[in-house]
Amino acid sequence: MNITSSALDRLAINTDLVRPVLVNFLREEICKVGYQRAVVGLSGGIDSAVSLALATEALGPRNVQAVVMPYRTSSAASEADARRLAEQFGVAVRKVEITPMVEPLISANAQMLNVRRGNVMARMRMIVLYDQSEEFKALVVGTSNKTELLLGYGTLHGDMASALNPIGDLYKTQLRQLARAIGIPHPVIDKPPTADLWVGQTDESELGVTYEVADQILFMLVDERCQEQDVIAAGFDPAIVRALNLRIRTNQFKRSLPIIAKISGRSIGTDFLYLRDWGR
Amino acid sequence: MNITSSALDRLAINTDLVRPVLVNFLREEICKVGYQRAVVGLSGGIDSAVSLALATEALGPRNVQAVVMPYRTSSAASEADARRLAEQFGVAVRKVEITPMVEPLISANAQMLNVRRGNVMARMRMIVLYDQSEEFKALVVGTSNKTELLLGYGTLHGDMASALNPIGDLYKTQLRQLARAIGIPHPVIDKPPTADLWVGQTDESELGVTYEVADQILFMLVDERCQEQDVIAAGFDPAIVRALNLRIRTNQFKRSLPIIAKISGRSIGTDFLYLRDWGR
Repeated sequence: MNITSSALDRLAINTDLVRPVLVNFLREEICKVGYQRAVVGLSGGIDSAVSLALATEALGPRNVQAVVMPYRTSSAASEADARRLAEQFGVAVRKVEITPMVEPLISANAQMLNVRRGNVMARMRMIVLYDQSEEFKALVVGTSNKTELLLGYGTLHGDMASALNPIGDLYKTQLRQLARAIGIPHPVIDKPPTADLWVGQTDESELGVTYEVADQILFMLVDERCQEQDVIAAGFDPAIVRALNLRIRTNQFKRSLPIIAKISGRSIGTDFLYLRDWGR
Repeated sequence: MNITSSALDRLAINTDLVRPVLVNFLREEICKVGYQRAVVGLSGGIDSAVSLALATEALGPRNVQAVVMPYRTSSAASEADARRLAEQFGVAVRKVEITPMVEPLISANAQMLNVRRGNVMARMRMIVLYDQSEEFKALVVGTSNKTELLLGYGTLHGDMASALNPIGDLYKTQLRQLARAIGIPHPVIDKPPTADLWVGQTDESELGVTYEVADQILFMLVDERCQEQDVIAAGFDPAIVRALNLRIRTNQFKRSLPIIAKISGRSIGTDFLYLRDWGR
């Protein structure tokens, strides 16, 4: 395979085309199942900022509710960013502290590792968000991007849970492009991405690669259907290429439904398959 | 369509065939992704009892952990049933009370309806179960049957969450047949099914139909691909047939992944599709 242009150039999106597609996606998919409102878990980071902005454009600010869900160790700066974003888009904010819900489980396991704690927190936020969506008669709008979904860098039944996701087909670097076009403030776009699950956590140190590099490798492997050796030949670190390719595969379970043992002639997940909005 | 035999007869399964299929399913699917252990949330009811029994037969009792997760209003008799079942199959029990985790959210919303509370509880149990699975290096074995899955009678990201589900293709009445063959005690098989999310709750009063009737209607609609009028002609209450058929459709979202807005040439959920155990 002959790579003539930089993968970064090929990753570039036309935000004037993409933005209305995503706004219409949200409006149509939410309205056709009988809803007109959305809830978005707002972290103060770029991903949820873009989801919030798109939902607001699709449904109007009064039909969107932002939910901030800090844990005791969460950064105060993140919450301040989240509140500024909500204000910018005219959206009301509901704050629900997850600390008292998380603490009984975590304090019972003093030796619980960071990743396990992080999963508990991410899932607790899912509970709050889905509960808010029931109160607000709204759907939960997702905030996971394509980079995270491919690498499995997220919690199943936690931050990966949503009814619909406007940004799940955009790599992190593409999301930055869209964020600029939408008018997300630069400090939010430029700060180091973090799940903020423990103090000092950053995505890029955990993943061992920058998003800029990861996205080029993923784009070649997935969107351009390259083989590992093609990506390595284009100049990327062989160890990183192999590690990311392995992550894509071993995290497929996070992008899948549970498997059900097939007994009957018509089994859910095998041959009883319909669109999500069947019957609406 | 000419229904010559009773739908109840046609629902009957050969438990001598089904049982080893489900046991092998669990062993193979768990082992091929590099695990050898399972966790099962044990309620004291028939569904989780069967899942536990199958997991024990597949992996051996030392490789299975039962988790009982009572809420403050949960029936003490349910926990006693759960403990007896675990003892019968030689499986260790871990008890984690969900009350202190649930209470901060529920007490903040005094007017929260039963269904909303029930969803919070079911999801809290998911958190505990997934967390236990990380500690025990195990997969979460599902306990939702085909009747519940078709009717959407369960909580998304709650009791419906699992890595794999041995009983999801068995109707409740079929599960009772299998439970008898496996040696689940009669009191567990015969007691009124309940999610035990609030005092006095029973499945059949909530659904407005007995499982015996519901299963025959669902079996005709789904497995035998009958039209509503065929099922009504077979003698079932037209209002119930229509209500169940509608429930199947409007709950498809609980059997689906979130929809992702398609932007690229290769999008997760649309044209980037692999088996759950891809790469294992």
